[in-house]
Amino acid sequence: MAVLKGAAIFGQSGGPTSVINASAAGVFTEALKQDCITKVYGMAHGIKGALDEQFYDMSQEDLETFELMKTTPSSALGSVRYKLAKAEDDDTDYKRLLEVFKKYDIRYFFYNGGNDSMDTCNKISKYMQKSGYEMRVMGVPKTIDNDLFGTDHCPGYGSAAKYIATSTMEVYLDARVYDKGMVTILEIMGRNAGWLTAAAQLATIKGCGPDLIYLPEKPFDLDDCMNKVAEIYKKNKNCIIAVSEGIKDKDGKYISEYGTDLAQQKDSFGHAQLGGLAATLANFAKQKTGAKVRGIEFSLLQRCSAHLGSKTDVEESFRAGQEAVKAAVSGVTDHMVAFERDMSSGSYVCNTKLLNLSEVANTEKTVPLSWIKDDDSGLTQDFIDYALPLIQGESCPPMVDGTPVCTS
Amino acid sequence: MAVLKGAAIFGQSGGPTSVINASAAGVFTEALKQDCITKVYGMAHGIKGALDEQFYDMSQEDLETFELMKTTPSSALGSVRYKLAKAEDDDTDYKRLLEVFKKYDIRYFFYNGGNDSMDTCNKISKYMQKSGYEMRVMGVPKTIDNDLFGTDHCPGYGSAAKYIATSTMEVYLDARVYDKGMVTILEIMGRNAGWLTAAAQLATIKGCGPDLIYLPEKPFDLDDCMNKVAEIYKKNKNCIIAVSEGIKDKDGKYISEYGTDLAQQKDSFGHAQLGGLAATLANFAKQKTGAKVRGIEFSLLQRCSAHLGSKTDVEESFRAGQEAVKAAVSGVTDHMVAFERDMSSGSYVCNTKLLNLSEVANTEKTVPLSWIKDDDSGLTQDFIDYALPLIQGESCPPMVDGTPVCTS
Repeated sequence: MAVLKGAAIFGQSGGPTSVINASAAGVFTEALKQDCITKVYGMAHGIKGALDEQFYDMSQEDLETFELMKTTPSSALGSVRYKLAKAEDDDTDYKRLLEVFKKYDIRYFFYNGGNDSMDTCNKISKYMQKSGYEMRVMGVPKTIDNDLFGTDHCPGYGSAAKYIATSTMEVYLDARVYDKGMVTILEIMGRNAGWLTAAAQLATIKGCGPDLIYLPEKPFDLDDCMNKVAEIYKKNKNCIIAVSEGIKDKDGKYISEYGTDLAQQKDSFGHAQLGGLAATLANFAKQKTGAKVRGIEFSLLQRCSAHLGSKTDVEESFRAGQEAVKAAVSGVTDHMVAFERDMSSGSYVCNTKLLNLSEVANTEKTVPLSWIKDDDSGLTQDFIDYALPLIQGESCPPMVDGTPVCTS
Repeated sequence: MAVLKGAAIFGQSGGPTSVINASAAGVFTEALKQDCITKVYGMAHGIKGALDEQFYDMSQEDLETFELMKTTPSSALGSVRYKLAKAEDDDTDYKRLLEVFKKYDIRYFFYNGGNDSMDTCNKISKYMQKSGYEMRVMGVPKTIDNDLFGTDHCPGYGSAAKYIATSTMEVYLDARVYDKGMVTILEIMGRNAGWLTAAAQLATIKGCGPDLIYLPEKPFDLDDCMNKVAEIYKKNKNCIIAVSEGIKDKDGKYISEYGTDLAQQKDSFGHAQLGGLAATLANFAKQKTGAKVRGIEFSLLQRCSAHLGSKTDVEESFRAGQEAVKAAVSGVTDHMVAFERDMSSGSYVCNTKLLNLSEVANTEKTVPLSWIKDDDSGLTQDFIDYALPLIQGESCPPMVDGTPVCTS
């Protein structure tokens, strides 16, 4: 394979994570080492930055910045949710990108994101090939949702899972202090895949897990859930439920809409945002049990709490970025870096592999139904064996004067 | 002062904190060292445990347990919210306590809590004195609300403040990733005192603080707030507001009730719990700005996140427990241990002092109005100088297999 000489560009896309910048640091440090890469750019706000010629020149940054990026949550370059049209329907953006790539002699395109971002990579690559513009396009996986197809797990998941497991344990301890008891609803991210909510199961290892766990992989039955809550509360004077934000009933209706229906039914003011799923379920639980109830949303905290990052996740995310650059330089294009678990030594080893972009794009990986217990009491040992290696080790930004230091 | 020989009992009361068990560890380790203390008991669920003879024998615990208690959040013994009647009105509980104290020869009574708990101490002490039962009663301060009168600050506040400052920084970074912008409302605990919400100001030191901060110390004007939000959003495409759960309008009405009014007005189902303050304000902000909005409640997490404890707070909390025992053994009764700041060396030194229980009970300390900026943009440097020493140093439970180890 002939050496391809030119500039490289990297962008971050979709929802941020605690470790998305670790992958960026991996791409940048590796790209800056490569002789064939003449310049290294970071796109401001993903593909929008490429379209608008809003780049950062990463060769201006020092090694300390890249080191700090490993522990800085959220997207340091800025992210975007922007879906490219099909080139057949509207090729405006593609033409513009080609123009920009030519202008800056950009020959390496790295994009960090989930399903949609891999779709973006795929479309760009196909267009450039058709236009005869030589370019290597590589995807770097990222999503706390852990729903990317073909990879054992996704960068970002381990840290979010560690935060969720730890916070669930802490809430468990807090919820048990009074002799009166309480019903607590933990609302966890995940519209279609329940990997994040499943992570609450990891709190059971230390005896501090939820009583019930509901993932979007299975239809949610409100009456059945409330009967179980009442039974557990009656027995233990306490009940903790972890629910995915995306749980739906058998008719495909989001449970979170039950609450807004109630609010909207009578008043146009509240709109669809008054009270989330946790508040809605807490209200139902109060009606059913008369108990003190509390709905807790982990909200953005679960995806940005780099102060409680998984060291395993940070290191793997960095490596995913490095491997994307190495592969591209060696001649690979149209692939995403993926993880492969090797347990042959008896303990967890994570290897990387490459997946064809068209295999990955727009396919979601959900939690296997066989890992979800039939009685809604949680996940099986298979899940624990799967997830536990991903939360190992602690990563925290340098703490100065009581709070973290991050790049800006 | 004659040596008083007998058993000691310790209880935890009110809302738990990340460090309440550190004070318990301080009391227990110190009490077990004292020759005049014949037995050391822990009350299950505070004063209720004393009334019901539900004790733990703490001499059965090993040193490792006490060490682990320092980093275990929530009340290890169980807490309670139980207000004793005035003895003049109903002396049933007091008679029962005297009976129990006599039965177990309990001569030392230590109680860990906030305003109400100091009131409980005070009442018990006065009754026992009147009954001629020799006893030493000491309060150990505790409250994330930091509203105890007469002490520079309260055990529990530093760790909660550290969590709030760090989480605010993380949310700040997360809220800025998209070029579209967002309005974020952070709801922080504090019904009458704004110390916890004020801690969001500490995030500004690293440039990641809120744009607006509202404490219950000042009447909240919804229109004025929304005008400011709109202005800031227009200018920066982003706005973060930190609000105390206890903010009220000029008529003394809780702003959190504005939302439930709307829900209740038309439907009896939603009760007072559908949507909290953050959701309510987020709805108003959406109406005003059309922006993407997000309401985030730090909820229980702010008081139980021992994984991000302040080392200063943990050590001071432990010491508060120790000092209570030392003082009681030396003959003091009817006092609470308090903190006094000594800045004479140019840096923060925390000394302990003793306050008369009747001085402390039922008096709340709020944030000085002169520390709250008139334009609602936050707290002055005086507050930062006050709070910053309290969040110094990191305390975390031992992490084993990716999650914390706590006592149970």
